[in-house]
Amino acid sequence: MDLVPGVLRGETVPIARLLSCAEAADDASRPALARIFEHTGKAHVVGITGVPGSGKSTLTAVLAEEFANSGRKVGIIAVDPSSPFSGGSILGDRIRMADIAMNPNVFIRSMATRGAMGGLSRGCLDAVDILDAAGFDIILIETVGVGQDEIEIVQAAHTVIVASAPGLGDEIQAIKAGILEIADIHIVTKCDRSDSNRTILELKGMLKMGDLTKFVEGWEPKVIGTSSLRREGFEELAATIDRHRSYLETSGEIVKRRRKISETRMLKIAESLVRKRFYEERLGSISELCGQMERKKIAPDAAARQLLARINGE
Amino acid sequence: MDLVPGVLRGETVPIARLLSCAEAADDASRPALARIFEHTGKAHVVGITGVPGSGKSTLTAVLAEEFANSGRKVGIIAVDPSSPFSGGSILGDRIRMADIAMNPNVFIRSMATRGAMGGLSRGCLDAVDILDAAGFDIILIETVGVGQDEIEIVQAAHTVIVASAPGLGDEIQAIKAGILEIADIHIVTKCDRSDSNRTILELKGMLKMGDLTKFVEGWEPKVIGTSSLRREGFEELAATIDRHRSYLETSGEIVKRRRKISETRMLKIAESLVRKRFYEERLGSISELCGQMERKKIAPDAAARQLLARINGE
Repeated sequence: MDLVPGVLRGETVPIARLLSCAEAADDASRPALARIFEHTGKAHVVGITGVPGSGKSTLTAVLAEEFANSGRKVGIIAVDPSSPFSGGSILGDRIRMADIAMNPNVFIRSMATRGAMGGLSRGCLDAVDILDAAGFDIILIETVGVGQDEIEIVQAAHTVIVASAPGLGDEIQAIKAGILEIADIHIVTKCDRSDSNRTILELKGMLKMGDLTKFVEGWEPKVIGTSSLRREGFEELAATIDRHRSYLETSGEIVKRRRKISETRMLKIAESLVRKRFYEERLGSISELCGQMERKKIAPDAAARQLLARINGE
Repeated sequence: MDLVPGVLRGETVPIARLLSCAEAADDASRPALARIFEHTGKAHVVGITGVPGSGKSTLTAVLAEEFANSGRKVGIIAVDPSSPFSGGSILGDRIRMADIAMNPNVFIRSMATRGAMGGLSRGCLDAVDILDAAGFDIILIETVGVGQDEIEIVQAAHTVIVASAPGLGDEIQAIKAGILEIADIHIVTKCDRSDSNRTILELKGMLKMGDLTKFVEGWEPKVIGTSSLRREGFEELAATIDRHRSYLETSGEIVKRRRKISETRMLKIAESLVRKRFYEERLGSISELCGQMERKKIAPDAAARQLLARINGE
């Protein structure tokens, strides 16, 4: 069955089916995805990340509602295994995920990160294409801010949001340090807590010191406090995302962002092709190469080059 | 200067220099690494992982001391940005890292995870080769247990240890779930704490239920409690690692492990070659491919295949 026309009409069932094909990196879906790709480029893609416990899943859900209530169609792609969207619900009792899932303007899809065999980013970015072509105005990608893959995915967005929660432990903060610099917008979540102000001031201080410079000129990363519990700060956040979008367009920065996205995309697919071919040939020609390595007949670097040559020989 | 003879004699300065070349994935070091590779295969490689806050760095340090005190030469490769070995010391005040660094039988190397451009695992596994060829008996690789790359690295070891701390938050535990199943040995750290027994029982319960099955038959993962503060449990841990090593040898399981290691190695190098070439050609031929993607003249999948063809065309 040709799913493309249904996807382009924004129909839920074909969208869900094509998303499943994309997630499985099913070769049979390539032609459909190539046709879908021609219809992309209209949605605004927002990447949301943060360390575990930063409140990013709840933030994503409430932000989606905020946009949906203003009449926009919102797609959510959650690639965070700890996300309530992925079923491993933790905050699910507090914020009614079910309510959001029932909103006709919101489409939620969680992607498995395990067993993705390096195809995580490929599947995720194909999923963005599908929702974009299906007419979603805003696409939120939620990833956990640890792991190279996850961070690269979230950077393949037009607007990058990094969530920080007040009062996280030192060890978590140490990891967090690596992702703060990718933010266009910083969110301090859980602003119903009394220690949230300190986190806001810390972030603002780091920005002032130039510690959190980003590759973009002309847009100083914003710091916004939100409370998902009290639904506070989301109007400001939605407005800031829209402002960032306008900024990208008027400054011409969008051209650089698009380039970064297409670069990430191409690289990630190439890597997943290498990996896929590797696993297909694990017991065949690659097994023989491994044997040579184990007998010290070939160095790992030379073996890897042979692997690449064989992949290309197809 | 030819660093290889010095490395093979176990001299610190050539070892450190070649490690730096390996970390930089410097092409000029390839011949030296290929020669080094011929002298590998004697060391027992132990991968140690755990989520942030699991106490794995301290565990690694104390375990290294335990082995060193029994007269063995121990190499530590830390690829955890939050590790005290990497300078971002957190527990450094409690356990005197400096003491361990001064031990003549211990060699510590931390690897940067940022800016590694996908070369993290390549550099790390080359580092294992260097220490192996230099005559280290035991090589401990410490990685943070989040991120595909990090988890793959630690699995490229003969014995895999997963550290769990009592009383970590739910969100952290959710992430942890993904790495428990790779353990040959489970460590519950911080056993000076009263709630550690519960964590030990939970793990044992999960093992009994068959939830934590591993691909190895004939070795049921062990659960050991340690206290780095009181230096308790490390004799048992060192003995269990030695027992696991014997088990691998006598059962013939070592052949499968070696295969897994050489497979991971080849794949990881191939991926890093793709990535390296990508960044070299980012402004050249790849820029043109990106442009075609942006004008919807070529789909991402087809563009990635062209990228691979060009890499191989060298």
